[in-house]
Amino acid sequence: MSLSFDLLASNGAARRGRITAAHGTIETPAFMPLGTAGTIKAMLPQSVAETGAEIVLGNTFHLMLRPGAERVAALGGLHTFMNWRRPILTDSGGFQVMSLKDLRKLDADGVTFRSPFDGSEHRLTPERSIEIQRLLDADITMSFDECTSWPVERAAATASMRLSMTWAARGRRAFTERPGYGLFGIVQGSVYPELRAESVQALTRIGFDGYAVGGLAVGEGQAAMFGVLDVTVPMLPRERPRYLMGVGRPADIVGAVRRGIDMFDCVLPTRGGRTAQAFTRRGELNLRNARHRDDPRPIDERCACPACRHHSRAYLHHLIRAEEILAAMLLTWHNLHYYQDLMRGLRGAIEAGSLDHWIATFEEEQSRGDIPPL
Amino acid sequence: MSLSFDLLASNGAARRGRITAAHGTIETPAFMPLGTAGTIKAMLPQSVAETGAEIVLGNTFHLMLRPGAERVAALGGLHTFMNWRRPILTDSGGFQVMSLKDLRKLDADGVTFRSPFDGSEHRLTPERSIEIQRLLDADITMSFDECTSWPVERAAATASMRLSMTWAARGRRAFTERPGYGLFGIVQGSVYPELRAESVQALTRIGFDGYAVGGLAVGEGQAAMFGVLDVTVPMLPRERPRYLMGVGRPADIVGAVRRGIDMFDCVLPTRGGRTAQAFTRRGELNLRNARHRDDPRPIDERCACPACRHHSRAYLHHLIRAEEILAAMLLTWHNLHYYQDLMRGLRGAIEAGSLDHWIATFEEEQSRGDIPPL
Repeated sequence: MSLSFDLLASNGAARRGRITAAHGTIETPAFMPLGTAGTIKAMLPQSVAETGAEIVLGNTFHLMLRPGAERVAALGGLHTFMNWRRPILTDSGGFQVMSLKDLRKLDADGVTFRSPFDGSEHRLTPERSIEIQRLLDADITMSFDECTSWPVERAAATASMRLSMTWAARGRRAFTERPGYGLFGIVQGSVYPELRAESVQALTRIGFDGYAVGGLAVGEGQAAMFGVLDVTVPMLPRERPRYLMGVGRPADIVGAVRRGIDMFDCVLPTRGGRTAQAFTRRGELNLRNARHRDDPRPIDERCACPACRHHSRAYLHHLIRAEEILAAMLLTWHNLHYYQDLMRGLRGAIEAGSLDHWIATFEEEQSRGDIPPL
Repeated sequence: MSLSFDLLASNGAARRGRITAAHGTIETPAFMPLGTAGTIKAMLPQSVAETGAEIVLGNTFHLMLRPGAERVAALGGLHTFMNWRRPILTDSGGFQVMSLKDLRKLDADGVTFRSPFDGSEHRLTPERSIEIQRLLDADITMSFDECTSWPVERAAATASMRLSMTWAARGRRAFTERPGYGLFGIVQGSVYPELRAESVQALTRIGFDGYAVGGLAVGEGQAAMFGVLDVTVPMLPRERPRYLMGVGRPADIVGAVRRGIDMFDCVLPTRGGRTAQAFTRRGELNLRNARHRDDPRPIDERCACPACRHHSRAYLHHLIRAEEILAAMLLTWHNLHYYQDLMRGLRGAIEAGSLDHWIATFEEEQSRGDIPPL
């Protein structure tokens, strides 16, 4: 088997699993921090591991342009390059290429585009995307697809999804099976249940090591997203991991886990760390706000991250105002630690069969809001 | 005794000592990383300690303006505020205030100036500078002085130095003695030996816990700087620590240690860490240079810092080109580690009585230059 997935427990539709990949195991439900350009921004890789992360995400688009996939391969692959010795999932480059708008030209075979870094011309096809991800040595490779835009008419969503399914089949043929390495297909179809069903059918007919739900978290809102999951997830093969791409806020993740999703990635904890935003048990807060200026308390006295163990809100506020790099370092660490705490909580609750109770507590704490100012 | 200094060994004019301050001991010769605004830029405080640093420097000017000395005091002092539990030396604010040029007005009593952050008006006098440093809870307080500009005529240098000596006496009276806390006087007089002598006389008559040599590293060049040390250091009391302010490159530090200096601070290792510059046994190198692009070797295979243990030059080059925060984090760590390695080497050589041999090896390695490209 290329990539193994063990289902350890379930609680309703929610699943507690374990992926065994070439570079290690991943306890699911899992959150994957974003390592876009070969670094989880503002974190040493050993610090990322200390938060409890077992897998990170690398971006094909960024790495193919800079420093180049062949260069990373010559330097020993992405694990060695960035000194992250655990599993890595790479995206296919499709999402970023499609976002280029005026700088890219789509045809049935692939996409030609210009580098936003230096204007040079590049081409991505399903085959080249798979090749790049092999050069990067990704444990989990993603199919090259067109992430359907939002809002979108049914006709355009159909054409886009069917193109992605053709590309998925081509990617599957281009992918070389190796022990511990896997290829995931991506379900498209926007908010149209029958398109999602057609996409799942097409992908399961091809056969993948895992299935991602794509085209969400693009502006459709949480209710529509959960609606798509409600119709899509039950159609996915039980014995393969399920990955909800680009999601999300803590409440999005909790709702998706309840619906049977196993894997997540999102830019919010790392980007938030660079923009004064902290995620906590009691909701989100902005440490740039003057009400933190004299507050000797940590972000969360129950959090075990270095920012909360060693530093006051007043200090973090000061670092943010002074535009100090340490602000991004500490807040990113806190946010990644919080997200991993969230996943640990969810995994424990599924094992204990107490997910509903756990979620009720989660929602009660989130709704309570931040501690009042001193 | 306010601040104790034990002379453990000497080798020629060079000294191996130990300062015992309120928050811990400092082995000398010592290098103090710059913690300007309450953070050693791009470093967690525990990482700074891991490099071997035992004391850091805080800037009165920056901290009085943001977040404010009274605020830091209310939050438990600078050690608690930045979570650096070891000794801290604060400068007096004089150097930065004098650099403001058009934004400040000097009179015999002190300086009035406008904050470059928000335009608000502030005043520093010898007494207020001492008070701010007490509010910050500095283990070592520096006298408020006028750092004489360069180049400077003898008459102007004389007037400037004598003003600083008046202020030094006022600062001494304003300083409250406490066990483990000390006040340093600053020798001025530019490159004029008789002015340096007059300044040393004035300061030793007042009596300080340590003596700094100020007004150097302002553009006069290494030969002129060493010339000033050659005439100044022998006049300083043997039993008190000697601090060369704002110095310097590794070769400057080595030459000053040989001349009997015990303490140093400099922006170069931290600033260099944010501008692609690495300090090594074999000189300085710029990792932005394309020749590092495919180089799998570390900056220095004999260095034990995380950048050299875990990462290639190619990776560091990539991070720099991609403007990733991790570039500043890893290079700053490397540079601070190198500077502390340098100080460990100097201390060991003085203890062993082999400083001349150690310096010959240091100079030979530095002159050899960086390893050739692969």
